[in-house]
Amino acid sequence: MKGLFVTFEGGEGAGKSTMLRELGEELRAEGYPVLETREPGGIRIAEKIREVILNPSHMEMDGRTEALLYAAARRQHLVEKVVPALEEGKIVLCDRFIDSSLAYQGVARGLGLDEVHQINDFAIENSMPDLTLLFNIKPEDGLARITANKGREQNRLDLEHIGFHEKVYEAYQKLASQYSERIRIIEAGQSFESVKKDALQVLHTYLSS
Amino acid sequence: MKGLFVTFEGGEGAGKSTMLRELGEELRAEGYPVLETREPGGIRIAEKIREVILNPSHMEMDGRTEALLYAAARRQHLVEKVVPALEEGKIVLCDRFIDSSLAYQGVARGLGLDEVHQINDFAIENSMPDLTLLFNIKPEDGLARITANKGREQNRLDLEHIGFHEKVYEAYQKLASQYSERIRIIEAGQSFESVKKDALQVLHTYLSS
Repeated sequence: MKGLFVTFEGGEGAGKSTMLRELGEELRAEGYPVLETREPGGIRIAEKIREVILNPSHMEMDGRTEALLYAAARRQHLVEKVVPALEEGKIVLCDRFIDSSLAYQGVARGLGLDEVHQINDFAIENSMPDLTLLFNIKPEDGLARITANKGREQNRLDLEHIGFHEKVYEAYQKLASQYSERIRIIEAGQSFESVKKDALQVLHTYLSS
Repeated sequence: MKGLFVTFEGGEGAGKSTMLRELGEELRAEGYPVLETREPGGIRIAEKIREVILNPSHMEMDGRTEALLYAAARRQHLVEKVVPALEEGKIVLCDRFIDSSLAYQGVARGLGLDEVHQINDFAIENSMPDLTLLFNIKPEDGLARITANKGREQNRLDLEHIGFHEKVYEAYQKLASQYSERIRIIEAGQSFESVKKDALQVLHTYLSS
């Protein structure tokens, strides 16, 4: 692989999707070839899978079904979009990846980190991210941002109890210390400009190393 | 579990679906409580997943995506339909289960038996079948039956090359010898009445043991 695979992680309302677009623009302005994506990523099979996962009426969905569906959508998006871009030497900025499944399904839903890691290893094979930016925000602050932002469509995960989001938050902390080589924490509760500055600094440091 | 979990396996055109209905009627006439099902089984989430898998236009689907989707549909059908029926003491007759994924994805698509077993273990947990009837037919004979039967809708898997179906056939043979306690071979190339008689005999022997 000639490219660089960067994933963006964090709880609901951490601002990672907005920041991904901002950083993509910056890097492109600096002359880097960039692909911005998120997991269904316009890949029709992955989009169909995501429709099943996020349908708010599917409240009977079992946690293991959900974890397998995320892994399936991840696989298809990876092979159709991420890997070809990396082979072309691009910087791929991806909104959520394996750590989301580890935090949401492995820990918050209690399926077990190791078991969820195993099915994701099957999906990912050798394509782990080179670098992961974790946008860190307290669950209550993140959820308050979502509520304030009327333009954003609510999905099934937003409706979960606050306790669920607290587990996600703690899981990300644990992953960040376990994979400290790969995961860099960005304090997302700061002003927009400060978050952007911190994230860019991490990227530049990595690119120049 | 008070019930009995019986799965029906075999290549395309082995006649297992027809035989499942026949055996269900027989057992019910004998006074057993029976649930006949196949993997999406009217479970809406599993039906949605199956639509994605079997859509003939989805030719770009990666083998690992497919294996994960089968495992996801299996999980949801299992927890919503099979396990409750077993807890009620029913004989559950299920058209295809884990062995289909092992034969089709693990062997024929070359993903590896152990790896496909692992993601299915995640989906199934402790609900392995008590008994599996393997309807054994040479691929060319099975496919000839499908072609002759104009009423049956073709799906994406029917369109695969004959070599694929031969691999499936060999994989089933291997599984039958590996899990000889659980899997019983029924010679499906015989007359309808002979196949039915053989299958019923296996079931009766198991039920009286």
